[in-house]
Amino acid sequence: MRMYDLIMKKRNGQILSRDEIDFMVQGYTTGTIPDYQMSAMMMAIYFRGMNGQETLYLTESMEHSGERLDLSGIRGIKVDKHSTGGVGDKTTLALTPMVAACGIPVAKMSGRGLGHTGGTIDKLESFPGFSTAISSETFLRNVNEIGIAIMGQTADLAPADKKLYALRDVTATVDNMSLIASSIMSKKLASGADAIVLDVKTGSGAFMKSQEDSFALAKEMVTLGNNAGRKTYAIISDMDQPLGFAVGNALEVKEAIDTLQGKGPADFLELCMTLGSYMLIAGEKAENEKEARDKLTESVYSGKALDKLAQLIEAQGGDQTSVYHPELLPTAEYQEDIISSQEGYISHITCSEIGMCSLLLGGGRETKESAIDLSVGLILRKKVGDFVKKGETLAVLHGNDREKMTQARQRFLQAYSFSQNIVEKSPLIKGVITP
Amino acid sequence: MRMYDLIMKKRNGQILSRDEIDFMVQGYTTGTIPDYQMSAMMMAIYFRGMNGQETLYLTESMEHSGERLDLSGIRGIKVDKHSTGGVGDKTTLALTPMVAACGIPVAKMSGRGLGHTGGTIDKLESFPGFSTAISSETFLRNVNEIGIAIMGQTADLAPADKKLYALRDVTATVDNMSLIASSIMSKKLASGADAIVLDVKTGSGAFMKSQEDSFALAKEMVTLGNNAGRKTYAIISDMDQPLGFAVGNALEVKEAIDTLQGKGPADFLELCMTLGSYMLIAGEKAENEKEARDKLTESVYSGKALDKLAQLIEAQGGDQTSVYHPELLPTAEYQEDIISSQEGYISHITCSEIGMCSLLLGGGRETKESAIDLSVGLILRKKVGDFVKKGETLAVLHGNDREKMTQARQRFLQAYSFSQNIVEKSPLIKGVITP
Repeated sequence: MRMYDLIMKKRNGQILSRDEIDFMVQGYTTGTIPDYQMSAMMMAIYFRGMNGQETLYLTESMEHSGERLDLSGIRGIKVDKHSTGGVGDKTTLALTPMVAACGIPVAKMSGRGLGHTGGTIDKLESFPGFSTAISSETFLRNVNEIGIAIMGQTADLAPADKKLYALRDVTATVDNMSLIASSIMSKKLASGADAIVLDVKTGSGAFMKSQEDSFALAKEMVTLGNNAGRKTYAIISDMDQPLGFAVGNALEVKEAIDTLQGKGPADFLELCMTLGSYMLIAGEKAENEKEARDKLTESVYSGKALDKLAQLIEAQGGDQTSVYHPELLPTAEYQEDIISSQEGYISHITCSEIGMCSLLLGGGRETKESAIDLSVGLILRKKVGDFVKKGETLAVLHGNDREKMTQARQRFLQAYSFSQNIVEKSPLIKGVITP
Repeated sequence: MRMYDLIMKKRNGQILSRDEIDFMVQGYTTGTIPDYQMSAMMMAIYFRGMNGQETLYLTESMEHSGERLDLSGIRGIKVDKHSTGGVGDKTTLALTPMVAACGIPVAKMSGRGLGHTGGTIDKLESFPGFSTAISSETFLRNVNEIGIAIMGQTADLAPADKKLYALRDVTATVDNMSLIASSIMSKKLASGADAIVLDVKTGSGAFMKSQEDSFALAKEMVTLGNNAGRKTYAIISDMDQPLGFAVGNALEVKEAIDTLQGKGPADFLELCMTLGSYMLIAGEKAENEKEARDKLTESVYSGKALDKLAQLIEAQGGDQTSVYHPELLPTAEYQEDIISSQEGYISHITCSEIGMCSLLLGGGRETKESAIDLSVGLILRKKVGDFVKKGETLAVLHGNDREKMTQARQRFLQAYSFSQNIVEKSPLIKGVITP
């Protein structure tokens, strides 16, 4: 078999077989197929597309290109969750304790972030002493004993995807539904869960801007997951403005704790309830959404979900006191209100500008080597559809450097748009794709 | 400027500017743009195409990527000729002495071949002592003194094209009209002639199989040449069967000498007359095709064209005796007739199989390092449209190794197809594109 012939085949609009896709993925991973042939293939796929069968073969081939997590030592149905990402997305922090409190074993691999805030691991490090650098044995034992563990991505999961994504990223071949879906799902499949609930963001702050594309991606991934033998659901949720109010690492942890105490933002709570419901259904802890929501609500009002977070923090070396006293979490030195000079209904909040504020304050990484300031960020006070009078506070900046705060303030003011007409609030959940 | 943005632009169907194309070609030639980005770009161009302006920019950018031949020291209008290649194509050997005898200065760069026979240089080395490794000074002086010189491709002409073609060749991005045209024309432009006459082959033995594609390529190149300031013509000629009767190095030289003596094959003579006419018109040595044909015919019947070949051979260290006594040229030890076991009209001769015969006999190079046996090859006796009886000779193999000749014979028999119905002979010249 020759890669040249496979490129020609795809270029001419033909279908690649499982053997051909395996040959391509293995050859590329081991280096016998060079970058320049793979990038030509990716561009041919960009134009010609792949059918469902080819996409499944590519996904499974990448899933098997490296290590795969073996979760068979964990009792029960393991349900994983994945988000396509956005601004203010602290879902894992609140959702996983909730579902763990309802009996779903949570064995989660998480990453650090490159962007406007840190990733889940960075955020969790707001708890002094907490570490995700735990051994596989500790990881599995904790899940069996307390129902929850979060590990850093140490394992060499789906290296083919890693290499391929890096290539696509520099050759303008990222934007293809099949390639995006197979990239996400190959890692999820290699992570070993029995079922997967996907949070596909849609809107101006999401990777997929249009609802049409977001639904298409969601459907493609649900089909892939189910055809690969994992019960898979997808929720399509709004990312046309930041999720919740808090953006920043410790600030988001505090908002997650608020939510576990029943006083979180409505949109964020709704997302946790929806994702959590399908995790409970997938994990056979509830028969339907009504039952699942009742259980999740109970986990919050009983305090069991918050206790589960405390158990997680303690089991991985952290101090659980902050879970009950979030005022002990890292706090920025200065707080500055951003006052509205306009009056009207907020019609739009540009996520990328809000993310840039957080980054400017020091809350995110510009390069892999950057250090993160966990304490900084911002708390929005007004969101889309809210009416604002002149002189009202739009948001509060939390920072440790007055100059950076001035820069962030200027950036912030570009994020908000106003209208003199009433602006309808758009529902957070746009749709659900079931297996 | 970033190559990533240029790939994205072309991928999305936008037009690249001259600056962008220059950036891309220069970056790729010097190595700052990696192969994997260029191959993605080539695949995007394959799908999106390039307009005439972009194709001209690419051509001129590649033309200027290395050395350019300066022919300004040669008096008169320099007219170059290029063929897209085929089996039995010995055109340069007969055509250049003819036009030189008519007063067109011939300053030709030629190459060695990789394939079924050698290139023009290999063929000319059938004359003992003849060398194309001459200095630029000798080259220019000879053209001014005797009107003709042929030099090996020593100069670093259009290195961008060389590098790009090698990449396209392994990434299934060769078959694009604009890329093919710019590749050919960038080298022609760098070769410094004032006018260019192109021989675009068409048919099963040509790079372009269909007449439609051949005409499209011819038009593209004529437009490119004229827009680059060189008067350019293209002749579309048949390559559905080998040209003339001889295939092999010294055998083709002999056929060229025959033609210069007025006793060559009709199809080959017609091609030389047509190409030669447009070279004379481009070089302002004739007003129209009628006048040009008369001059070319006179150059043959007066013996001036043959004398011109002899002058060329002698001026570059060869023994001109063989020009007048071609029986002195390299001759194979064995000759074997291939006898027809069928009766009927010949309906098709597969060029690639005839080429393979020559290669099997030792007449071509399989790799750059292969040695060529100049003496071997085959002489066809019957061509498409001819009626053949059982027992008649189809061709004569010339070889130095009986075993190789047996292999070549088997291959040969796969090349001929027969019909019981009359087969019309197709005209050699399919069309002419003028500036």
